[in-house]
Amino acid sequence: MQPFAHPYKNANMKSLDTILIAYGAAWHERDPQKRMAYLETCWAEDGRYVDPNGDVAGRDGLAAYMDAFHEQAKGAKIIVTSQPNPHHEVAHFTWAMVAVGGFPLLKGHDFATLDQDGRIVQLVGFFGDPEPFNKKKGLLSWFKH
Amino acid sequence: MQPFAHPYKNANMKSLDTILIAYGAAWHERDPQKRMAYLETCWAEDGRYVDPNGDVAGRDGLAAYMDAFHEQAKGAKIIVTSQPNPHHEVAHFTWAMVAVGGFPLLKGHDFATLDQDGRIVQLVGFFGDPEPFNKKKGLLSWFKH
Repeated sequence: MQPFAHPYKNANMKSLDTILIAYGAAWHERDPQKRMAYLETCWAEDGRYVDPNGDVAGRDGLAAYMDAFHEQAKGAKIIVTSQPNPHHEVAHFTWAMVAVGGFPLLKGHDFATLDQDGRIVQLVGFFGDPEPFNKKKGLLSWFKH
Repeated sequence: MQPFAHPYKNANMKSLDTILIAYGAAWHERDPQKRMAYLETCWAEDGRYVDPNGDVAGRDGLAAYMDAFHEQAKGAKIIVTSQPNPHHEVAHFTWAMVAVGGFPLLKGHDFATLDQDGRIVQLVGFFGDPEPFNKKKGLLSWFKH
């Protein structure tokens, strides 16, 4: 992993590894109190989570979003699937949604912005990969606009 | 391409395709006036560009960063290599740096935030892909921390 050159580096700042392990654990933990402990580690008090399906703020907002996911997901899990690629106050990592048994349902990208304590103050999630240009269809639809 | 559900959608807003074509063209255009016209199309007045090598603000700041790239790049070019994957006010797309003759030197991810007119107000660039966890080395170094 590259050294993390966060411009706000300070003595109280948690490592990015600690942040991401806690974030991944929060998606797995169903006990509200334990999950909140993970979120207190990794998530800024007013941190924003936004993906194509939702846009929520704060630890309670994200916890409610996670609950809604589990209610619909029938045992599927969100897993962090890469190490972070960080620079300045930002980091890119990948995730997957896997069904019971490990079957992959969806993959995606997360872009995190960290606050001065290293906690996630914004996380933007994308579903899938951007569609490459090397498909005839993609290229033509682009120039049609 | 998915419909672009920008929450600030308004009559003056440019399409994301227009924005990205102009942004890609700005990286190719060496004439300062023509390039500035592209940047006026795609880049917010105080828009921030940040990647592992730099952190600049405004159209002049980005233009100077592009000049510095061309001075060092010996004919290499930056190319947008995917369609955008957008939602809300954000979009993910990929890029590549290719040498003269088309040899790929570096690939990466761009994460853009758009302002109310659809212009890029922040673009965060990442070099390469996040390192996956499915390598023994990656996984062990993660848990060593």
